[in-house]
This record gives sequence, structure tokens and C-alpha cells, in this order.
Amino acid sequence: MSTTVSPLAPKRYPTMPEIAGVRIAAAEAGIKYKGRKDLMVMVFDEGTEVAGVFTRSKCPSAPVELCRQNLPGGRARILVVNSGNANAFTGKRGRESTAVECKAAAAAVGGSESEVFLASTGVIGEPLDAGKFTHLLGDLVKQAQAGAWKDAAQAIMTTDTYPKYLTAKADLDGVEVTINGIAKGAGMIAPDMATMLSFVATDAPIAASALQDLLSKGTNKTFNAVTVDSDTSTSDTLMLFATGKAADRGAPRITDAKDPRLAGFRRALNRLLKQLALQVVRDGEGARKMIEITVTGAKSSRSAKKVALSIANSPLVKTAVAGEDANWGRVVMAVGKAGEPAERDLLSIWFGDFRVAHQGERDPDYSEEAVSSYMKQDDITIRVDLGLGNGKATVWTCDLTKEYVAINGDYRS
Amino acid sequence: MSTTVSPLAPKRYPTMPEIAGVRIAAAEAGIKYKGRKDLMVMVFDEGTEVAGVFTRSKCPSAPVELCRQNLPGGRARILVVNSGNANAFTGKRGRESTAVECKAAAAAVGGSESEVFLASTGVIGEPLDAGKFTHLLGDLVKQAQAGAWKDAAQAIMTTDTYPKYLTAKADLDGVEVTINGIAKGAGMIAPDMATMLSFVATDAPIAASALQDLLSKGTNKTFNAVTVDSDTSTSDTLMLFATGKAADRGAPRITDAKDPRLAGFRRALNRLLKQLALQVVRDGEGARKMIEITVTGAKSSRSAKKVALSIANSPLVKTAVAGEDANWGRVVMAVGKAGEPAERDLLSIWFGDFRVAHQGERDPDYSEEAVSSYMKQDDITIRVDLGLGNGKATVWTCDLTKEYVAINGDYRS
Repeated sequence: MSTTVSPLAPKRYPTMPEIAGVRIAAAEAGIKYKGRKDLMVMVFDEGTEVAGVFTRSKCPSAPVELCRQNLPGGRARILVVNSGNANAFTGKRGRESTAVECKAAAAAVGGSESEVFLASTGVIGEPLDAGKFTHLLGDLVKQAQAGAWKDAAQAIMTTDTYPKYLTAKADLDGVEVTINGIAKGAGMIAPDMATMLSFVATDAPIAASALQDLLSKGTNKTFNAVTVDSDTSTSDTLMLFATGKAADRGAPRITDAKDPRLAGFRRALNRLLKQLALQVVRDGEGARKMIEITVTGAKSSRSAKKVALSIANSPLVKTAVAGEDANWGRVVMAVGKAGEPAERDLLSIWFGDFRVAHQGERDPDYSEEAVSSYMKQDDITIRVDLGLGNGKATVWTCDLTKEYVAINGDYRS
Repeated sequence: MSTTVSPLAPKRYPTMPEIAGVRIAAAEAGIKYKGRKDLMVMVFDEGTEVAGVFTRSKCPSAPVELCRQNLPGGRARILVVNSGNANAFTGKRGRESTAVECKAAAAAVGGSESEVFLASTGVIGEPLDAGKFTHLLGDLVKQAQAGAWKDAAQAIMTTDTYPKYLTAKADLDGVEVTINGIAKGAGMIAPDMATMLSFVATDAPIAASALQDLLSKGTNKTFNAVTVDSDTSTSDTLMLFATGKAADRGAPRITDAKDPRLAGFRRALNRLLKQLALQVVRDGEGARKMIEITVTGAKSSRSAKKVALSIANSPLVKTAVAGEDANWGRVVMAVGKAGEPAERDLLSIWFGDFRVAHQGERDPDYSEEAVSSYMKQDDITIRVDLGLGNGKATVWTCDLTKEYVAINGDYRS
């Protein structure tokens, strides 16, 4: 946990409402960090349904493997998350550790092991001694309270400089339901997934299969459209829990993702996922500026996203933005290296509202002074029109600063 | 041109021999830099044959387009290179500029426009006013001398901290031939191509088609196996010129790349290309350490190279090496994100001779102290065995330091 808070941190934090059927507790287990909470449990009432999306890494962590194994059951009673150690690339001992943790968590909550979900974040490759904290789980479950969302967000931080938590309301067939979410970054952030860990819960009564559809589709333009450093974690986990408690207030149980009554909920969920994803970018390691990159006029939206990510992941574009330099030549370079259809002489590029390049050359009308002044802002927008078709995509990233290098040059030691 | 020379710069420079049929001159044209040479001509005797490989960027520079247009002719009389301005993304004016330059160069050397080759390196997107230096070409051709290879290497530098030039001898059917080469980096370096500009010349009598085959195959394990920052330039150019003058001393003219008499020349050329490529890496922007990454046990050599480049381009791996941290967990991460076949529980990882991970977990026998001491060296070797097949590849990169960010945060201004 860094001592200097990102200049892009939210100016205000929301007051988190309770989600009926969800209780939270956090503790100092001393896994790696001293003097801060590093263990969090989220306890769910019986009947809670669950969906998840995970890293596409070929070397996933042991907790990711356990979540994948339990997800088809569709039910969740408890989520246990620790920071400080990722339990990734820990081989047989990693699996033994999740087995011990899973058993203890199931016993603590009085549920089945198939209803347990785990996540770990921190250093890779160090064995995680679950025995150091499993004895805490029983008390944590007992102490868990409905309102402790901020504690949860804080307990899962690693190099994050601020906790990330958000809440939203949605209308489900005339009944107001609530969605709460927490997330943590802050390096090794690239699709897919983009965040290392994010957990969202709602009281809406939505069946696991519909929940999964909502979540999988919702990540495309949110968590899978942000990148800090093009590095994909072995532990990326995004889960959505639905307690169904709003049924007590008359909300209908939804079993089909195509149900038109889900429209409002879907909008609210996607907005919340996007805001959580952007909070991760705004807290990207060493970030001083947020960059929104939109590519239009591509042959397809898939192609547009590939070009946008090529720009977003270019160290030369990111260092130029860090230096407040509207160096659109590097944007051209990044378009060119993406390997997607592009015609130099049809390209146009904007920084903010300033068109700096048009039809393959510098726009003769743009004012270097005005653009330079624009580049001093915290939030920078880059738009590229390829002039070829209707494909469009937006991605988000942050600048690449000396602080990123400093943070990652001595993270493990 | 930086004022601080890379700590990885060569301790000694070679004395460059002459190549019969090649003359060189350089001048201060004041294109962008002040007080240094920024314009270079290489003049070739009639009958010189040529091969080239260029950037795969979809937005290539105007000089790259001109070279591609003239290459099928197979003949070269003059090469003109400027630094300070890349003449890239300069649209119609870029093409007008290369046309003016081409015409002036052909007139200066008394040859055809189809025998002119051009390269430009520096800022992208600024129109290049060829009129500022074309009047110099006539005198440069007259002044050109056989021995001026070091001048040539210096004139093409941009953010390079030292000039890159090498020479080699080869036996061609009992006759000694010479190969000289120069190169420049130092950012926006990734396959394909890896260097922005490199020019190699020989007195060996080799026909253009055979020359092209040698060069194209030679780049795969040399220039296309190095990366500084994963950013591919719009201007990458590697050319090989053969004056054929060694025929005067009895060397046979070779017209078929499969000719067994080429074996020694091919070896010497490939070694020279590799050494030039490594010099580019050793002068990567902000580089303090050179990293050699070998992946073995992959399903194929293509797969091995993809995994190796995923490691080489990972900002988290590169910053860890900068911090002298043997953080092999990040190597696992980079293997996992490459998308190639990999089995966590079969992976082994070495830093130097120290095996730090084996069969999916930390090697219980490795000494953290010994590895930490190893990480203090200038040259770091990382080896990953995937345990799946016989595919193998080696790539080279440098660490990612605060200096990289500093150099690229204010390059244009």
C-alpha cells in the first residue's frame, strides 16, 4: 500500500448501503503486511447465486482454479480474500492451501465446500500458509456486519493508493434493488481481465445462469477495456453475487438474461462495472493522468479495439502523455504496429477537441499552444478515425511515469 | 543524442576497413540538431546490388515506400540518410520530399532515380524540407571517402548514446571478403523490424536475389529477435549492399542463395547482424542491463519466440530486472499471458545458472542470496523451459528504467 494517494483518486467516496443477505468482516492476519487488514470474508445468506469471470492466463493461481471448479454449482455462501500473497505458481502446495482454506471456510459458515470462493493477491510464487489464518475464519463469520464494504475494499488492496468501492440502485420491475462493488488494482493490469480482483453483490433475485450472461457481456466494454501495463495477472477475478433478498419486497426472480425486465439492472450493473474499472486505471501504478482512447472508422469493432489497445499499451504514447507532449506521431506508430487494416492517408487524430492530424499529415490549422495547454489536464482524450468503416471502441489507460518504474523496481523486496 | 553514454556501450570499437566500391560522407545540414552531422551519403560503384527488409507498420514512412519501390530493380548507386526528422506521416508532402531528394541524389551520383535509396529517422509527422539539404548532395558525393564508416554511424544517431559499427571477414571460395555494418536505435524498437536503421555493405559479388534471401533469413534470429519497448517504428530499414569488387581478386559471383560456397559468408553476415542488433539493445533508451531470454521445450520455435517476446516486452519483468530483483513470479505471469501452450506444473525457470522454479513451484534448493548477487550484473540471462516439446528461441531486450521514461517524456519538445 503506497503512502502517496494518486492525484486521480475520487474527490468523494459514496456511503455504502447494506445489501440484504451480505455480511462482511476483515482482520489483520499478518500474511505479509503489518498494521493493516489483509484478510476479508464476505458471508452470503443461503440461496445466494453467483457468476464469475477469470484471467485467461495459461498459468492461473490456485484460488482461480478453485473458483472455476465451484462456479458451475451457481451457489455461494462465503468469499475469502487475502492480500499480500497471490498463491499463484505454488504448485501442489498451492492446491493444498486452497483445500485447507476451503474446508475451514465451509465449516465457518456451515455450508458446503462447493459454495466457497477464494481469491488471493500479492506476490507470486511464495507458498501461502493457510494455517496462518484459517483459525480466524470462524470469528470473522460471526463478527461479519452488513455495512463493512469500505473495510472490505481496504483489506484487498496491495499497491493501490486508495480503496475502490461504489454503489448503484436499479429498478427491477418496479422494485428498487441495490448493487455494491469493490475492486483493487493496481499493476499487472490488462485485459483479459483488467482488474486483479473485483467483487459485486446485489439483492436482486437473479438466477446464476442469467447472472453469468450479464457479467460476461458487461466486462467487454468495462474491465476488458482497461489496461495499465499490458501485463495480465494470474489471479484476475471478477465475481457477482445475487442474494435474491429483494424478493421479500416483491422483486420478481429472473431466470433468463433476455428478460426485458432486466434492462434497468443491466444498465446500472454495466455503469458500475465501468466506474470500478476506471477507478482501477486512475490508480494505475504511478499514474498521473487518465487517458481515454477512442478509435472510430475501423473495419469492425474488434479491429477498433485492437488498434485502441495498441495505442493504450504503447510505452512511447504513455510516456509522451506523462510528459504532457501531444506527440501524435507516436499514435500513428501505434496504429501502424497494430497489424489491423489502416490507411495512412485516411487517418485523423484528435487530442481532446483538437484535430492534430488529418488525411495522413499534420492538420495545418491546429494550434500547438492550445494543444499543449490541453495536455496539462488530468484527463486526456485521444481519438483516432481510421476512415475505413463503422467499427468503434473505447479503452482506458494511464500514463507511464518514473513512479511506475520505482514501484515495480522494488515491489518484492 | 544523449550526453550520458550507456553503461552497456562497447569497451572497444573496431577499426573499420574500407569496402571497395563504397565511399561515405557526412555533413551538418541543420535539419534539427545543431553542431553535429545529421546527413550521410553512401556512394556505391556501378554494378552494386542491393537487398532490404523494412518495417511491417501499416503506416510506413515516405522513404520506406520509396525504398520498397526501387528494391525490385536490385541496383544501388547511392544511399542518403538524415537524422532529426523521420519524414513519416507527412502525407503528400512526404512523397514530394522524397521525390525531390531522389532526383537530386540521382543527379549527384550520375545514376538513375531507381538506384537511389533513402532513410530518415527522428520526429514523426513534421514535414521534411528536402530543399534544406539537397544542394549539399553534389559536394558530399565528391568528398566521399572509403574509410568514413564511423562518421556514417554517428550521422544517423538520434537518442543513441554511442555509434554502432562493426566489421567482419568471410571466406568466399578461397577469397577473403569484408562486411561492414552500421546501425542506430534506440527507442521504438521491436520486431519486426527491431532497429530503426541499419546499413551493411560488402565487396562480395552476390546477386540481388541471393542477397535478399540471405538478409531476410538472417533477420529472424537477429534484428527480429530484439525488443526495447515493443513499439515498432514506421521507418525501420535494414539494407545490404554488395559492390562485387572482390571479383577483381578472384571471388566468384554467386547468384543462388543455396550455393554451398556462401556458407562462410552467411555465418559471418548473421553474426554481424546479431552483434549490430545486440548493440541496439545495449543502447536501448535508459538501458542499464541487457537481458537474454531463452525459451526451450515449447511446442514449436514459433511458439517459443512468442513466449520469449511476451517476457521481453513485459514492463513488470523489465522493471524487476532494473531493480535487480529475481522476481520469477512475473516471468510466470508473462508466460501465462502469451496465449501459447504452457502447463504451469511443467515450468522451470532459471536466472543465470540458478534454477529458481521447477515443476510449477519455487525450487526449494535455490539460494536467494546467490541469485540476488547474480542480478547485480550488467548482463542477465533468463531461461524458461516449458517442458512440452523441442521448440526453442532466444530474444534480447533491456531493462525498463526511470531514464526511459525521462527520455521519452520530453523527446519532442
